[in-house]
Amino acid sequence: MSLVIVGTVAFDAIETPFGKTDKIVGGAATFAGLSASYLYDNVKLVSVIGEDFGDNIDIIKAKGIHVEGIEVVKGGKSFFWSGKYHNDMNSRDTLVTELNVLADFDPKIPASYQDCEYLLLGNLTPQVQLHTLERLKEQPKLVVLDTMNFWMDVALEDLKKVLQKVDVLTINDEEARQLSGEYSLVKASEKILQMGPKYLIIKKGEHGALLFGEGQIFSAPALPLAEVFDPTGAGDTFAGGFMGYLAKVKSINFTNMKNAIIYGSAMASFCVEKFGTERLKDLTQEEISARIQQFVSLSKFDIA
Amino acid sequence: MSLVIVGTVAFDAIETPFGKTDKIVGGAATFAGLSASYLYDNVKLVSVIGEDFGDNIDIIKAKGIHVEGIEVVKGGKSFFWSGKYHNDMNSRDTLVTELNVLADFDPKIPASYQDCEYLLLGNLTPQVQLHTLERLKEQPKLVVLDTMNFWMDVALEDLKKVLQKVDVLTINDEEARQLSGEYSLVKASEKILQMGPKYLIIKKGEHGALLFGEGQIFSAPALPLAEVFDPTGAGDTFAGGFMGYLAKVKSINFTNMKNAIIYGSAMASFCVEKFGTERLKDLTQEEISARIQQFVSLSKFDIA
Repeated sequence: MSLVIVGTVAFDAIETPFGKTDKIVGGAATFAGLSASYLYDNVKLVSVIGEDFGDNIDIIKAKGIHVEGIEVVKGGKSFFWSGKYHNDMNSRDTLVTELNVLADFDPKIPASYQDCEYLLLGNLTPQVQLHTLERLKEQPKLVVLDTMNFWMDVALEDLKKVLQKVDVLTINDEEARQLSGEYSLVKASEKILQMGPKYLIIKKGEHGALLFGEGQIFSAPALPLAEVFDPTGAGDTFAGGFMGYLAKVKSINFTNMKNAIIYGSAMASFCVEKFGTERLKDLTQEEISARIQQFVSLSKFDIA
Repeated sequence: MSLVIVGTVAFDAIETPFGKTDKIVGGAATFAGLSASYLYDNVKLVSVIGEDFGDNIDIIKAKGIHVEGIEVVKGGKSFFWSGKYHNDMNSRDTLVTELNVLADFDPKIPASYQDCEYLLLGNLTPQVQLHTLERLKEQPKLVVLDTMNFWMDVALEDLKKVLQKVDVLTINDEEARQLSGEYSLVKASEKILQMGPKYLIIKKGEHGALLFGEGQIFSAPALPLAEVFDPTGAGDTFAGGFMGYLAKVKSINFTNMKNAIIYGSAMASFCVEKFGTERLKDLTQEEISARIQQFVSLSKFDIA
């Protein structure tokens, strides 16, 4: 049984108030895969890269992540994104987006991936997300979908089709408002849960995350940080940690979902401490456990 | 021993997407006093009103709150504020501010108030806050200060003086950033705690609140609400509930502060359900207990 993650494996160039990088390894599936690999040992990626990606794939392989589902396009160039964060780190300008090989991405599911029990559909065109689902012979136990406002603008009908086939949707608060047409996140969640997913996770960045489902609500804190060095990939790292935890504990219910969100938040809190995937390359289980305990003491109270 | 609250007792006229009021009873001390009265039975207000306030004072008296410290200016007009909330309820325009009797407010502390053990200095000029402290013969066990960006703009030096004499400061996230010159709330808290207070509470509205002190951080959730009817007074209601809880349990430490924040948040969640003080007039202890339990289930998780 395995956790399959579909998403971008790419190059990023990032500028923050703390510094500037050349092309470094990025992409939603990269961040999610690295994050999940600390919690679950059978993680498999589906993506497309160009020949220019070269040895960079070793960052992913080094964590024992399967890469047979990452197509390498001969002579092709990998997806490239470049952005500059503002001083508040909550907003950014995209400087460059080169789709390159991603423009014709048609996800290939190797036979060895057909044991997929947990599927994370990273932020891609809803069409690609649908194709992935169709190419799995058995419906996974849990399908989590990440998307963004862009697809609500340009491919809403396709997005609604894929929403009907997933168990969990993760979006941010503005996207939840856009998708539902409701300002109140409670009302927004009610409308979105009628579109298909059984659970909705609303990511609020420095304000934490909300989980809606089974008629319940859970509010997870974000760890207040003295410095956010680079927020790139934090949402994908969150999703990877969330999935990795659920794949590990195997049982899907609201209680485990809550813990999964805490694990996802903890992994994301590491991600932002350095540029790109740097901090996710060599975490120890001790560091992760200590971070989880910080979340416990951050949010625990005891009213008699 | 008593809980003394200094602040405005006033008239408001409010417009929200849900409707519009004529002049109704408002004011920081009114909201805080009503809120505290559900948790502690010896609440005393210090304020100033005009003769026009008339029988409206009965809303406060009805909850057993002491009003000897509310000066009535003969022929004077009470402070009046009118505002209109935008559709998102997070921003508002002030339509009218008439200081009236508040312009010359010089707080009178009746002899019967000298048993003050808990003091809430509501949002007023730092000068008035300082005068109140000077007029108490004994330093209270706990002094909580509420303030706002306006006083940071026009009376920063006075504000810094009063900050040296208080135990807890409550402000919102933008104000914490302004006061400290730091964007990160962790860094902001470090600077602000060097200005005098032992504890800092950062109010984040729909995103909850953060407590800093004793080298620890606590993140309290806000209750996600289907409808926010009128946010006026929510911050004051929070402060009143916070103080009322601490006055009741009598012991000041980080653990009790955390619970106090949950009580304050619960009281604030009632406040916004109706216009002005309407919802704070006749709450039951059962309603409050049930709301506290909602906060418990909202934020509780159990990682082995």
